[in-house]
Amino acid sequence: MKQINGGVCAPKGFRAGGIWCGIKAASKKRDLALIYSEKPCAAAGIFTQNLVKAASVLVSQKHLSHGTLRAIIANSGNANACTGEAGMAAARKMAELAADLFAINLAEVAVASTGVIGVPLPIGAIENSIEALGNSLGADAAGSDAALEAIMTTDTRKKDGAVEIEINGKPVRIGAMVKGSGMIHINMATMLGFITTDAAISHELLDKALRRAAGHSFNRVTVDGDTSTNDTLIIMASGEAGNSPINTAGADYEIFAEALESLCVKLAKSMARDGEGATKLLAVTVTGAADEKSAEKLAMSAASSSLVKAAVFGADANWGRVLCAFGYSGVVFDPNAADVSFCSKAGRVKVCENGAGLQFSETEAKKILLDDEIEINASVGSGEGKATVWGCDLTYDYVKINGDYRS
Amino acid sequence: MKQINGGVCAPKGFRAGGIWCGIKAASKKRDLALIYSEKPCAAAGIFTQNLVKAASVLVSQKHLSHGTLRAIIANSGNANACTGEAGMAAARKMAELAADLFAINLAEVAVASTGVIGVPLPIGAIENSIEALGNSLGADAAGSDAALEAIMTTDTRKKDGAVEIEINGKPVRIGAMVKGSGMIHINMATMLGFITTDAAISHELLDKALRRAAGHSFNRVTVDGDTSTNDTLIIMASGEAGNSPINTAGADYEIFAEALESLCVKLAKSMARDGEGATKLLAVTVTGAADEKSAEKLAMSAASSSLVKAAVFGADANWGRVLCAFGYSGVVFDPNAADVSFCSKAGRVKVCENGAGLQFSETEAKKILLDDEIEINASVGSGEGKATVWGCDLTYDYVKINGDYRS
Repeated sequence: MKQINGGVCAPKGFRAGGIWCGIKAASKKRDLALIYSEKPCAAAGIFTQNLVKAASVLVSQKHLSHGTLRAIIANSGNANACTGEAGMAAARKMAELAADLFAINLAEVAVASTGVIGVPLPIGAIENSIEALGNSLGADAAGSDAALEAIMTTDTRKKDGAVEIEINGKPVRIGAMVKGSGMIHINMATMLGFITTDAAISHELLDKALRRAAGHSFNRVTVDGDTSTNDTLIIMASGEAGNSPINTAGADYEIFAEALESLCVKLAKSMARDGEGATKLLAVTVTGAADEKSAEKLAMSAASSSLVKAAVFGADANWGRVLCAFGYSGVVFDPNAADVSFCSKAGRVKVCENGAGLQFSETEAKKILLDDEIEINASVGSGEGKATVWGCDLTYDYVKINGDYRS
Repeated sequence: MKQINGGVCAPKGFRAGGIWCGIKAASKKRDLALIYSEKPCAAAGIFTQNLVKAASVLVSQKHLSHGTLRAIIANSGNANACTGEAGMAAARKMAELAADLFAINLAEVAVASTGVIGVPLPIGAIENSIEALGNSLGADAAGSDAALEAIMTTDTRKKDGAVEIEINGKPVRIGAMVKGSGMIHINMATMLGFITTDAAISHELLDKALRRAAGHSFNRVTVDGDTSTNDTLIIMASGEAGNSPINTAGADYEIFAEALESLCVKLAKSMARDGEGATKLLAVTVTGAADEKSAEKLAMSAASSSLVKAAVFGADANWGRVLCAFGYSGVVFDPNAADVSFCSKAGRVKVCENGAGLQFSETEAKKILLDDEIEINASVGSGEGKATVWGCDLTYDYVKINGDYRS
């Protein structure tokens, strides 16, 4: 597997673009994105589990039920959530505008929105700009980049990537872009993610691979414990790579699924690092749990704890908070079998063994925790369960960003 | 019911005191507290549900299983949690020191600790000061006050109170003190609470009344979602009031239970207001839910949301975050039936009706949200379920306090 350039335009058959249509009235940053495939694509999607779902989510879920797509239209600056029947009409209109642009079926278009909740979506601005959006499409890295910019909100860095693998001698590519920095928690809160591939693969296996990849990546990221109304992760497979179609979960499927997972893990980590106000990437790894789910739950509890996150911000080796967070996770384990270490590029210090504190050098621990990539490694027994969860520190800037997001 | 002075010394038969024994080495603030009853008391306790339990919790749970107490000894500055077998020995020794002081049974002493986790408790300091602690006891407000000071950590204000009611013509008193400002969430995280009463009441009904009061007060407070290793809430009833003993859940029990609940609600609110770094008290009330439990869960989800809390700090009427938090609470409700209003002494503004945003004056909303007591009132349907949960805003100071708590 090799890393390549081009984002969602790296796989054959895709074009992408992005423009400013006027939703982000003040900043005049790009706010409308489009990804288009020349041919019908096998497609799969994963959406928010929040009971309160944005109109775009409801429309996309319906369209995805057919298992094929040709286009994704997305806006930033407005979530089109809690906007009533007018919001539903606006989301349908967005899909219709894209369908008309390419003379494709309405059900071949997915819609996504991100931004402030409860404000009517200015659908007129999108309608007025739909031709310009079509004209912005490109089949290169610049097109992918423009689309990516157009889905960003409080994101401070671009999060995309592409990989190439070989399946029966044919180069197969996967490209992806994601946005999301606040309101990110297990189950992809306020995340938009669009993935393209030129692999020939059935809808069923594409769906299976996407769920596995998301389960080990985006669903293991936490920023603030909030789960948004708008989460959307969609993959489209054009089949243009010319590999013999992947229709069974055999060796070819494994190659594809592993590459997809690896790309998603990379983007999930960059999403955690870009958590609102974050200065540090935090990776919590739990081993020795009864099973993988328990390990994930323990790690998520520690990575989500405001106290742990504030301690990481302050480079304070307050490991008791880690054990405390394990304790209220709901997972049964033996606290007296728990070991905890803090690690970074600057070194490694074991602070707790068999549930009790060890003597350690505060100076050394401080040095380790001042790094910008912190690992908390904990073992909680002799089970097989292991999982890593990614998060970030809790900072003054998180409070600042979210104390006045709408202004 | 009338408010009276005297804290835990207001009821007949109790003495209290507090001193500095050296655990809070740097600040030299009081760190060791004692509450003592002349006579054996019916007693009940509620403890943390965290799987990782402080040694003091394990010792007190064991002693409380007998249903009677005569003393509570408590320290601040050290949680004596995650301290292994040495920690257990230290907690037992604390109880023993108090038992020896009064020549009472070991099982008549409860122990509580609060402070940093994972650091050995300097039991020698407590042993050296046990006589001074005994000498500090007083039967007046000053004694109660000294004990209260000695259990405070990052608390910025004293949280205590006392009430008097009448039961069969006899004045009956209840006094209480609590500490807790960070790590406070449902199930009383890092809260210590000691309640005294001179009511004559059976252990069973005392326990029942305590659980009801805590369920409607301390268990409805959230500061940061963390649940501590040390939560302890204990009530002791001396029987000195001379009322005919409350042995059935009749009218006398109701008078007592209501007074206890009202005192606990008052202290729970002051605990939320004193959340670490908090500048505002937030009360989220949900009505119209299917049942009380659902209403509580919805309200807790909103009051715990970092995004809602940051918006309250920033006086930003970002009501979408409230609905969003309801949506991921796990409670089933109809988002299209949800109404949301923001209220304070400065007024009231309805921002959402039937799940969709209303036009409202941002200036008016700002004025309302700049107050230091904010109410979010939401109706989610036509059910009977209603509950209020108390929390606070998320501020720069929360991050500051918790970024370097140990130093």
